[in-house]
Amino acid sequence: MMLRDATPDDIDAIVAMLADDPLGRDREAPGDPAYRAAFDAIAAQQGNALIVAERDGVVIGCLQLTFLPGLSRKGQIRAQIEGVRVARVARNGGVGAALVEEALRRSRAAGCGMVQLATDRSRADAQRFYARLGFEASHVGMKMML
Amino acid sequence: MMLRDATPDDIDAIVAMLADDPLGRDREAPGDPAYRAAFDAIAAQQGNALIVAERDGVVIGCLQLTFLPGLSRKGQIRAQIEGVRVARVARNGGVGAALVEEALRRSRAAGCGMVQLATDRSRADAQRFYARLGFEASHVGMKMML
Repeated sequence: MMLRDATPDDIDAIVAMLADDPLGRDREAPGDPAYRAAFDAIAAQQGNALIVAERDGVVIGCLQLTFLPGLSRKGQIRAQIEGVRVARVARNGGVGAALVEEALRRSRAAGCGMVQLATDRSRADAQRFYARLGFEASHVGMKMML
Repeated sequence: MMLRDATPDDIDAIVAMLADDPLGRDREAPGDPAYRAAFDAIAAQQGNALIVAERDGVVIGCLQLTFLPGLSRKGQIRAQIEGVRVARVARNGGVGAALVEEALRRSRAAGCGMVQLATDRSRADAQRFYARLGFEASHVGMKMML
């Protein structure tokens, strides 16, 4: 398995994984040109990266990693993980853990002091997965649609 | 009260607010030159802003607002709020709400479809405050120190 930065050619595979999800099913629209614009916006923002896992030439996992400079905690850079997905055929094979470990490696290399993420309350399996990797469920994640 | 983008001259006032906090007390170091480097890193990252509230020439509140492009939700830009603080002398006077409303206004203007934040589980008052403003505690926020 190879972990690498995503290219525009990976967009369809990533969106397919985002859509093949109990929560994503109703909020994604594979084929929408908005995804390409979003990919370009990610690429244009310093510290924002889309990482994919590839096996036998097929993308089987993805993760977004963003480095967020801030004043808090003595000017600590925090890393943020979003949109972790593993293709249905590749689940329970360590792909998700490998993606997160790659994110942690990049975050340490960038000097980040902390990594954070938020998972929907309904994703109990995800919360156990992140706890096993060393994350602590210390915060309440709040959202508002605009 | 005026809401505006922070300048380097505001760093000391912002750090004083970050340090005057039950959780921040032990993790900030007012006067540390790292804060200026962090300020410059925030200013250099597209979509990252530090907003302050000023009254009678004194900074009495702050908030960090970051726009995060992503593929999820049809390429939605999400806004993220961090580091909301109000000076002790100005609390319970609507400063925090004004800062968050300014963040929502800027987020809508930037085309964001969602705004998110995470608060420490111990900050029950903060969670009520955000719920009153329309945020939903839909997620579990997880962190790991690196």
